[in-house]
Amino acid sequence: MIELVERIRREGRNLGNGILKVDGFINHQVDPALMDTCGQELASRFAALGATKVLTAEISGIAPAIATARYLNLPVVYARKVKPITMPDQVFLTLAPSHTKGRMVELIVSPEYLGSGERVLIIDDFLASGATIMGLVRLAQTAGATVVGVGTLIEKTFEGGRGLLEAIGLPVESLAAIRSMEDGQILFDE
Amino acid sequence: MIELVERIRREGRNLGNGILKVDGFINHQVDPALMDTCGQELASRFAALGATKVLTAEISGIAPAIATARYLNLPVVYARKVKPITMPDQVFLTLAPSHTKGRMVELIVSPEYLGSGERVLIIDDFLASGATIMGLVRLAQTAGATVVGVGTLIEKTFEGGRGLLEAIGLPVESLAAIRSMEDGQILFDE
Repeated sequence: MIELVERIRREGRNLGNGILKVDGFINHQVDPALMDTCGQELASRFAALGATKVLTAEISGIAPAIATARYLNLPVVYARKVKPITMPDQVFLTLAPSHTKGRMVELIVSPEYLGSGERVLIIDDFLASGATIMGLVRLAQTAGATVVGVGTLIEKTFEGGRGLLEAIGLPVESLAAIRSMEDGQILFDE
Repeated sequence: MIELVERIRREGRNLGNGILKVDGFINHQVDPALMDTCGQELASRFAALGATKVLTAEISGIAPAIATARYLNLPVVYARKVKPITMPDQVFLTLAPSHTKGRMVELIVSPEYLGSGERVLIIDDFLASGATIMGLVRLAQTAGATVVGVGTLIEKTFEGGRGLLEAIGLPVESLAAIRSMEDGQILFDE
């Protein structure tokens, strides 16, 4: 999507080691208008799949997931990384490695809000190795739900996450696909 | 706001010790349409204040802050609780007690996105004791910014946070004000 690609070209920073800093409009400061445009575009790409719920992971998945879900008229569930006291004792929990934290994190969803029969659209900010999103897939499957697709704002195609998801039959959409971050550059798939 | 009050009456649960569970539409599962209505209402109440930025705290402040900021055409900054590797070494950091975690948490904002001259509107999901919001006020003041108002979805008036904020001259708006949660009830200010 041209608006997102242009914004990354202008304001994104390659910090090395495959880390793309987009803190000025996605990950710390958020541009609600850009997020809205991204959500509308992701919603249109998945409109035909009959999703009943959008699933994401806190923290930075929340903004794109809500923007998308608003256009699909669906509720969003965001997996928590720390179990809050308002959650029941019995939950769905899986572990996923965190790129930016350098350790495993928990992804926790309450059975109250994710059940069998749901058709789940997964939305996140980044698709890189696919580890977090595969964690969300496992949570949905454990709940007896069906994952119908995966949408992300930014994909780092050189990290291979798409392959994992397509191998289990999931359609994958990303709005900005980066094919290389070598030598300090940010090169997009055209 | 009647839509929010009615939703809390229908689906909110009083877990005791002043804890209101609204995980079905705000804190774990989010209803994007309700959030949009709340954001529009908060935006209209603060439209005249000339805010240049919306400030909130991750995690559950993000949804109402973005919904409000979208109607005000402003960027949102959400204070992080763990410093990500994309943030500079020198940051604004304060400590605030967390109700639901039973310990102090850090609130961290990068100087890149909060500076002197900004007029900051603080938006959060809950106003209770005001501890988190006072933390955000301190961060904004440390950055040399001016806080112009505080808006929340739900206020627990019996916890006294409003008094702290009004004492430093801040206008406070909440969309659902709960005056008592004793004996398992949820009683609203009418």
